[in-house]
Amino acid sequence: MFKKILIANRGEIAVRVVRACRELGIRSVVAYSEADRESLAVRLADESVCVGPAPSSKSYLNIPSIVSAALITGCDAIHPGYGFLSENTYLCEICERIGITFIGPPRHAIEQMSDKAMARQAMKEAGVPIIPGTEEPVSNLERAARIARDIGYPVLLKAVAGGGGRGMRVVHTPEELASTFEVASSEADAAFKDGRLYIEKYLDRPRHVEVQIIADKYGKVLHLGERDCSVQRRHQKLIEESPAPNLSNRTREAIHKAAIKGAKHIRFHNVGTFEFLVDQQEKFYFIEVNTRIQVEHPVTEMVTGIDLVKWQIRLAAGEPLGFDQKDVEFRGHCIESRIVAEDPYKDFAPQAGVIDLYIPPGGPGIRVDSHLYCGYRVPTYYDSLLAKVLAWGDDRDEAIARMLRALDEFVITGVQTSIEFHREAIDRTDFRKGNVHTKFVEEMFSNKVPSER
Amino acid sequence: MFKKILIANRGEIAVRVVRACRELGIRSVVAYSEADRESLAVRLADESVCVGPAPSSKSYLNIPSIVSAALITGCDAIHPGYGFLSENTYLCEICERIGITFIGPPRHAIEQMSDKAMARQAMKEAGVPIIPGTEEPVSNLERAARIARDIGYPVLLKAVAGGGGRGMRVVHTPEELASTFEVASSEADAAFKDGRLYIEKYLDRPRHVEVQIIADKYGKVLHLGERDCSVQRRHQKLIEESPAPNLSNRTREAIHKAAIKGAKHIRFHNVGTFEFLVDQQEKFYFIEVNTRIQVEHPVTEMVTGIDLVKWQIRLAAGEPLGFDQKDVEFRGHCIESRIVAEDPYKDFAPQAGVIDLYIPPGGPGIRVDSHLYCGYRVPTYYDSLLAKVLAWGDDRDEAIARMLRALDEFVITGVQTSIEFHREAIDRTDFRKGNVHTKFVEEMFSNKVPSER
Repeated sequence: MFKKILIANRGEIAVRVVRACRELGIRSVVAYSEADRESLAVRLADESVCVGPAPSSKSYLNIPSIVSAALITGCDAIHPGYGFLSENTYLCEICERIGITFIGPPRHAIEQMSDKAMARQAMKEAGVPIIPGTEEPVSNLERAARIARDIGYPVLLKAVAGGGGRGMRVVHTPEELASTFEVASSEADAAFKDGRLYIEKYLDRPRHVEVQIIADKYGKVLHLGERDCSVQRRHQKLIEESPAPNLSNRTREAIHKAAIKGAKHIRFHNVGTFEFLVDQQEKFYFIEVNTRIQVEHPVTEMVTGIDLVKWQIRLAAGEPLGFDQKDVEFRGHCIESRIVAEDPYKDFAPQAGVIDLYIPPGGPGIRVDSHLYCGYRVPTYYDSLLAKVLAWGDDRDEAIARMLRALDEFVITGVQTSIEFHREAIDRTDFRKGNVHTKFVEEMFSNKVPSER
Repeated sequence: MFKKILIANRGEIAVRVVRACRELGIRSVVAYSEADRESLAVRLADESVCVGPAPSSKSYLNIPSIVSAALITGCDAIHPGYGFLSENTYLCEICERIGITFIGPPRHAIEQMSDKAMARQAMKEAGVPIIPGTEEPVSNLERAARIARDIGYPVLLKAVAGGGGRGMRVVHTPEELASTFEVASSEADAAFKDGRLYIEKYLDRPRHVEVQIIADKYGKVLHLGERDCSVQRRHQKLIEESPAPNLSNRTREAIHKAAIKGAKHIRFHNVGTFEFLVDQQEKFYFIEVNTRIQVEHPVTEMVTGIDLVKWQIRLAAGEPLGFDQKDVEFRGHCIESRIVAEDPYKDFAPQAGVIDLYIPPGGPGIRVDSHLYCGYRVPTYYDSLLAKVLAWGDDRDEAIARMLRALDEFVITGVQTSIEFHREAIDRTDFRKGNVHTKFVEEMFSNKVPSER
C-alpha cells in the first residue's frame, strides 16, 4: 500500500481524498494554489505544498509543478480528483516514468475514452449500443435521405465543426430534411467555415443514466448500479440519484451489462463511469466514459455502502477486489444536490465572497461533502461547487422528504447559492414522479412566471 | 396524523425532532427557555414559544407551562425528547385529559418501568433473567450466608438507602461475608441512618447491552438489534455501538428475544430500550427499561435504515408498524461518540462558552447530530452534550477508522470538549478488539501516566 499520496486537486474532492487517506492510514499531501492556502483540505491534510498562483493553468494544471511537489514530499502516488489533470495521459506517462502511481484507470483506457470517435468505435466493437449516426460527414441530400431513413426520424443534423449544442438542427420528416439540408450546411459554413454535416438519431428528452464500474487489475469487473443524472443545465449535472426512477428492471440490468461489457473490452480497471442516454422507449445508447471519480460518486456510496475513493486507492495499489457482484447490495434511495455559488435566477451567474455563516444540515440520512467553513473566502478562479448534499431514504419519497428538509435547514450566507433552486426543482410534481429528462431544467425555467421565483 | 407537535426539549434532540416533523410534513413548535432563545432548534422549527426562565425546573420541567404552550399554539401532540419530562406520567395523564397525544409508550408501561422493584417483578414474571438477589433486606448473617450460597459468589452487599454506587461492597467468599456483613451494616447505618442490606449477585466488569424495541398499538413488537454502551463513566454513556462486538450470535438472539418477551408482557408500544448487563460468561440480566427515545438511537438508525423518531410519531398517531421482523436488515457497524462540553482530563468538569469556530466532520459514513453553530453560546444550565458523531462502516474496523478521522477533523473552539478523550479511547487496543466493559473508562484513567495526556 502507498505511504503518502499527493492530492492534485482542491475544494470538496480534495477533502474527500484526504478523508480516504486518513481512513486507510496513508499520509496525505495537498497540492494547493495560492488562492487555496486557507482551504479546508490544506487544514485537514497531513502536509500541503503550494504549486503555483491562483489561475489553474499555473497550479492545478501545471504538470511539472504537480510532479515536483510529489517528488519533493516523497509521495508514492498522485490522486488527481476530478477535472484538472484527472484524465491527462501525459501526467500518467510521466508518473509511469518516475515510478509514481497515478491513481486512476490504465493510460490506454483514458486515452481511448478521451477521444469521442475512438470511444464510439470501441463500444461498437464491444456490442454496446451507440447512438445511430454517420461516422463520416454526409456530402449530399440524397445520401442524407437514405441514412435518415435507415436511422429513423427524427434525426439530428450536426455541423462537423460545431459542438456544445451549437450547429445542430432537428429534422422530423423526409420533406423537412429536403428543405433543411442545404440551409443547415450553409449555416454551418457561415458559422464555422465548414459546411459538412453529420447525421445522428435525435433523442427527444432522453434521460442521462450512468453506470458506476469498479474493476481490479486482475480482470474482475463489477457494476455498482446506476445513477440518473438527467437534471442538468448545459451539460452540468445539478441533481443525481440512484437507483434511476421509472426504469424497468429489464432495462436497468441491460444497461449494467452493457457497461460491464464495454469496460471489459477496453481492459478497464480502477473506478469509472459509463454514461448512456435512455430514450422514452427505454432504448439506451452509450455516450461516453469518465475515466475518473465523479462528483456524484457519493450517491452510489450511500446505496451500496462501498467507499469508492478508498477502493480507487486500493485498486491502484494492486489490491484485488474483495467482493463479487452478488455481494453488492443496494439499499434504499439516494439523491444528491450540487449546491453551487451561482444565482440560478440570474442565468446561473457565478458568485464569490466570504462565507459569514455556514450551518450544514445533519441528522438521519444526510451526508454533506463540502470544503466550506465559517469565514472561508470562496475564490473566483475555480468551479462554483460549494457543497454536495446527499439525502438517503428507505425509498425515493423518504429521500426526497429528507433532501427538502436538509435544504430548508442549510444556511450559507455571504454568497448567493443554488439552494433555493434545488428546493424548487425537487419539490416539483414531475421530479416527485420521477419524470426527469435532460430538458427538465430548461422546461422548469421556461414554464416559470416571475412571481414563482 | 398530527398537524402540529410541541417539542418539549432542547439541544440536539429538539433539532432531531424538528427534522422528523419536517420530513413527515407536520408543523413543529419548539418550547424553549430564556437561555435557549438563540438555539438551533428555535431557528429551524416552524414556530417557537418561550416556556420560562433558564433553570429547567422553571421551563423544561414546568408542566403547566409546557401544556399551556401546546394549547396556545394549537398542537395536537407533545414530543418530550429524552430526559426532562420524557418519563413523566403526570404529563401523560394531563395530556390524556386534554386530548393531546403524549408521544411515547403507554402510561402504564412508563409507570411500571420507572419503579425499579416493579420493573424487576414484571420481568421476573415475563421470564426475563434478572440479577439474582433479595427483594427484601437481609436481617442477619446466617440468612445472608444462605442467600449468598444460593446466588453464588461474588455477591454485592447493597445498603437499602444507598444508590448511585454508594453503600456497596463486593464479597468473594463465605469467610469474607462473615467478616464483612456486620461492618457493612454499621457503615450503612452511619452513612444513611439505615443499616439494612440487600444481597445481589456481583458482576465483574460486565458489558452494558441494550435492545431497541419498536412496537405498535396492535400487538406487533419487534427488535431493531442491540447496542453496546459499555463505555461509560458514572453511568453516563460515552461511546455506543451496534452490533455489540464479541458477543456470540446465540447470546445476541437470546437477548433480543428476552427484550421482546418483556415488552409484550408489559403491553409496551412505541419505542423503548431494554437494558441488560452481560457477564463474562455471556449470561445476561435485565437492568431497566427506558420508555423513551435514547441519546444513542442514531446508532440503530444507521445500521437498520429505520428512522426511529419518525416511527415514534407515527406509532403514537396509531399507525401500525409497516414491516415485520424479517424485513429488518442489519448492515455494517456503527459507533457513536458523545462529544460533551467537559474536560475529561479534569474529572469531566463541565465547560461553558461561545463557540468561535464549528466545523463538523462530513463525508462517507459520518452523521452528526448537533445543535451547535458558529457563534452559539453554550449555556451553563443544562447537560453538556454538544454533538453526537456517528461513524458507519462496512465492518467495525472501517467504523473505527472513520470515527477516528471524523474526530481528527472535528473543530470546536471556544469551549473545552471531550473530542480528544474519544480519540484516545477508540484508538486503544482494548477498544479495537471489542474488549469493552463498564469499567473501561475507569481503567483507562487509572492506567494512565500523566505524560500520556
